[in-house]
Amino acid sequence: MKNLYFANTEIKSGFWKYYTDLVRNVTVRAVYDRFKETGRFDAFSCSWREGDDENKKPHIFWDSDVAKWIEGVAYLTETRREEELEALVDATVDEIEKNQRADGYFNSYFLTVSPSKIYSDRSCHELYCTGHLIEAAIAYHKATGKDKLLTCMLKNVDFIRRIFMEEGRASFTTPGHEEIEIALLKLYEYTGDERHLELARFFINKRGTCENDDMHWEGEVWDEYFQSEMPVREMSEAKGHAVRAGYLYTSMAMLSKIDGDKELKAAADRLFDNIINKKMSITGGVGVQKHGESYSYDYNLPNRDVYNETCAAVSLAMLAGALQESEPNSLYGDIIEKIYYNGFLSGVSLSGDEFFYTNPLELDLKKYKHKGTYQPISQRVKVFGCSCCPPNVVRILGSLPRYMYTVEGDTVWCNQFAHAETKLTVGGKDAILLQKTAYPSDGNITFEYKGEPLTLFVRIPEWCVEYEGETENGFARFELKDGDSLTLNLPMNIHFMEANPNVQDDSGRYAVMRGPIVYCMESVDNGDNLRDITLIDNGNYRLVEEKGIPAPAIILDAERRENTGKLYYIKNSARVSFSAKLIPYFAFANRGACDLIVWTQVR
Amino acid sequence: MKNLYFANTEIKSGFWKYYTDLVRNVTVRAVYDRFKETGRFDAFSCSWREGDDENKKPHIFWDSDVAKWIEGVAYLTETRREEELEALVDATVDEIEKNQRADGYFNSYFLTVSPSKIYSDRSCHELYCTGHLIEAAIAYHKATGKDKLLTCMLKNVDFIRRIFMEEGRASFTTPGHEEIEIALLKLYEYTGDERHLELARFFINKRGTCENDDMHWEGEVWDEYFQSEMPVREMSEAKGHAVRAGYLYTSMAMLSKIDGDKELKAAADRLFDNIINKKMSITGGVGVQKHGESYSYDYNLPNRDVYNETCAAVSLAMLAGALQESEPNSLYGDIIEKIYYNGFLSGVSLSGDEFFYTNPLELDLKKYKHKGTYQPISQRVKVFGCSCCPPNVVRILGSLPRYMYTVEGDTVWCNQFAHAETKLTVGGKDAILLQKTAYPSDGNITFEYKGEPLTLFVRIPEWCVEYEGETENGFARFELKDGDSLTLNLPMNIHFMEANPNVQDDSGRYAVMRGPIVYCMESVDNGDNLRDITLIDNGNYRLVEEKGIPAPAIILDAERRENTGKLYYIKNSARVSFSAKLIPYFAFANRGACDLIVWTQVR
Repeated sequence: MKNLYFANTEIKSGFWKYYTDLVRNVTVRAVYDRFKETGRFDAFSCSWREGDDENKKPHIFWDSDVAKWIEGVAYLTETRREEELEALVDATVDEIEKNQRADGYFNSYFLTVSPSKIYSDRSCHELYCTGHLIEAAIAYHKATGKDKLLTCMLKNVDFIRRIFMEEGRASFTTPGHEEIEIALLKLYEYTGDERHLELARFFINKRGTCENDDMHWEGEVWDEYFQSEMPVREMSEAKGHAVRAGYLYTSMAMLSKIDGDKELKAAADRLFDNIINKKMSITGGVGVQKHGESYSYDYNLPNRDVYNETCAAVSLAMLAGALQESEPNSLYGDIIEKIYYNGFLSGVSLSGDEFFYTNPLELDLKKYKHKGTYQPISQRVKVFGCSCCPPNVVRILGSLPRYMYTVEGDTVWCNQFAHAETKLTVGGKDAILLQKTAYPSDGNITFEYKGEPLTLFVRIPEWCVEYEGETENGFARFELKDGDSLTLNLPMNIHFMEANPNVQDDSGRYAVMRGPIVYCMESVDNGDNLRDITLIDNGNYRLVEEKGIPAPAIILDAERRENTGKLYYIKNSARVSFSAKLIPYFAFANRGACDLIVWTQVR
Repeated sequence: MKNLYFANTEIKSGFWKYYTDLVRNVTVRAVYDRFKETGRFDAFSCSWREGDDENKKPHIFWDSDVAKWIEGVAYLTETRREEELEALVDATVDEIEKNQRADGYFNSYFLTVSPSKIYSDRSCHELYCTGHLIEAAIAYHKATGKDKLLTCMLKNVDFIRRIFMEEGRASFTTPGHEEIEIALLKLYEYTGDERHLELARFFINKRGTCENDDMHWEGEVWDEYFQSEMPVREMSEAKGHAVRAGYLYTSMAMLSKIDGDKELKAAADRLFDNIINKKMSITGGVGVQKHGESYSYDYNLPNRDVYNETCAAVSLAMLAGALQESEPNSLYGDIIEKIYYNGFLSGVSLSGDEFFYTNPLELDLKKYKHKGTYQPISQRVKVFGCSCCPPNVVRILGSLPRYMYTVEGDTVWCNQFAHAETKLTVGGKDAILLQKTAYPSDGNITFEYKGEPLTLFVRIPEWCVEYEGETENGFARFELKDGDSLTLNLPMNIHFMEANPNVQDDSGRYAVMRGPIVYCMESVDNGDNLRDITLIDNGNYRLVEEKGIPAPAIILDAERRENTGKLYYIKNSARVSFSAKLIPYFAFANRGACDLIVWTQVR
């Protein structure tokens, strides 16, 4: 089974069309402009020297920021050439080629700021940057046929292979920030060169086994932070920096499939299971702990003082996307859907040019006056000092259908829903699968098929408890022949969700979902003291269109207490009724700073 | 109106007898032992020099720790001589006399560690230490007739008056930590010397008006922390370090009464009103913010990551106790009762030798694994580095009836309840008022009176909403003559309390109270996941005696969810019934480390 290449699918209209247009028209340029302003592009000239503007001093992760942007441009270019963007990429690639060392090494930070420290500090993101440049090189070569960046990166990879694997000359053995493992496996898949597979295997298998990978910070061993506390096949609990972890686990899932490595697959499965059953916010957000941007202990899922980095959500979607290629199981599509519609999408504004690094599920702006405690930012910004998330948004939105279909022979699994046309090869011939739907506005989906006989599995989402048909591994099965069409009606009611009793932060509270979308309330709609609102579970609700939000809002009966002025008083039942307005979680914080809540009271 | 001197009242049995015995038999010696071990007593020899044991180096607030302990010993001595304790006090007083400078200055830290810095750093607690030594001197003189310490402190006060008020030679004008204001007003009251009143007036009136009092820390102006943001008569919101604030406000209330200063009284009233209506936990705990040990913004009353220093609760009781002398209003007794039975008393273990500095209303020990966030300690300890609270416990428990009765002429207000015998002077003659009650086990109170005709006002507690008799300012009025007895039955039901909707941390949650006592649940009785417990409000409950706790526990019907293993699932009503055990809040954390909750779900 393989995820069908995203460019085989053209999104035609609806929810995801809003975002494919947005990334092309706004986001990709907005990210470029901010990266240009902040010196991230100029850094590739490798001309910065001590004494120059400190603000323009290259940073250890800047190459990765630009690389993800290039990857995003490549994806956009697959669908429609963007000459101006290509020219910007080409200029950057020229700088890489020009400044790459003869031995193949390239990193704009180390070449300019710290050449004597190359491959000597595991925490310095060198291989992470290279990994993203490799992914960019593959995508750009595939999209444009231009091979300059790919050639540079192949040379760089050869150097890395020699220093790390063949000669063991680096001060550490495995990357401090995983990413190159994924890139090397993609490079192997793209080039067929087994040496890249070997190097990926080396990095994955050596992890947690090498003394020179031990990291000590502030008197603590930070091995868990770097996923180096044990060999990867022994892991069963997601730990440490959430993006690092997600990228590692993704590479484990990818390698286990290539190698048919059941032990490695079992470890990836355990880690995925641990995350989605014990460490994931209902939005798909993960890595709740600011300290180390990390996974916390099981069931610790705070809503207000939570981290949930956008890139961490991306990394979990990538893991699910990799596992989706190993076996048919609707769970992977469920998780990807949860992340894409909620905890990832909240990372970008409806205007496409502002971003969240952290994605809280509750905001109480007054709490920001409580000094000495961590509070995530309450408004998206155009760029961060550590600006990994915005270009991740570009590459994900630039390749949205990447996990939509999985194919094997003449069988297709439909994992995600959108009005979209997909080119397939069935029975050795071209085929077209058209999906028509207003999803997630409703759950009616029609497939129209042209081609040789096809077995189509359609994911029945976990949220659709009302579906009564038979399923295999969570998919409904259909046999299609040329000219067939079929319509699936997935009843899309609102559901009040509760969390496991071990999630103490959500006890006595409920989250509203409709289809894949988690809803929230904002004070701009519902007044202050959001935690005091009780929604009425009497079946009455009304969907309303909300200007600028590509999914419906919900109007629900609700009640709240009146303020009698007393600080404490004997329980009474006096409540004031009102109509609460819930908007999709991903759309929060688009109308100025205000309070937010996902987990509310319900009666 | 004056609070009747505590020693006029002898507690005979019941709840407070447990604690008067405990402080005499355990606490006073336990605090001495820890202070002796840590060098606090030896510091008075003023012999420490650079190069000596750093652990024994005097600290800027050590004098105040010992002073409060001396004050406590004095109170104990009032009731029954304690020769061994007196000898320990006398030895310390001898050291003070020996090491006091000829000009009257005494501070064990500055005399030994930093003599060149005397009165040059407002943040260094010098006048705070002197204040506590003055209070100790008055109490010890009154209890024993010994005048050595009082003589020393009068000399010290003369020096302070000269340096601060007459010559303005100190680097600052008003104390960085308030306390001496209270002490000077007590000294004026005790000696009748108007100069002490003048100096107190100087410190109170100059506050917030002097440029040399401005404090800057870490780029911030910390004027609010020190209650120096404005002149005291303009204040209306409690701000900054909660103990400092409470001591200042108390002195304002005291001075306003002495001077008949309505403007100052109005300010004290505003501040008290702000605290009790917007900034006080249901336990009477105040100063929720760890940052600066301070009052936070109105209605910010977290339960888990809360500070609520024991000394801050003491300071609020002192403020209420001072205001209680200005006008008959049952509110003051209500607040003192709330603090004494809950947020103050939680500061000492049932064994009397372990203490909380901070007093949380919720503990989730798993949350301590969430790195980078503040969590209060979950178990009492024998001594702190900053150990102001344990000796405050000694002096408060050593003088428990200090706010019990207020007298004016032949009128007595009974503010607090206990089985106790009180000596009064009524109609110019000795009189005896005996109060018989098992309070707070029940609300039946019998008064037996011997003496000339007396008007007795008895506080009807705010918790007793079932009381139907007439009240004046919250008191029931009775006329007693020799041989009279009267019985008051205050129905003591359990009440589920709710908090103002602005207290977002308590929304959807309720606290159980019975009489003045706030109840809590601990995981040792009720299992894990305390936030998931729902108490059933059907009127059924059972009081049970709990070994070692001098007030009843409550058994209540309750329910909780079973763990289905799912992280998120559609709301259902499946619950498991069980009997919840609630113990008085003050008794939490006496059976090893476990989870705690005050604000629970109720249906």
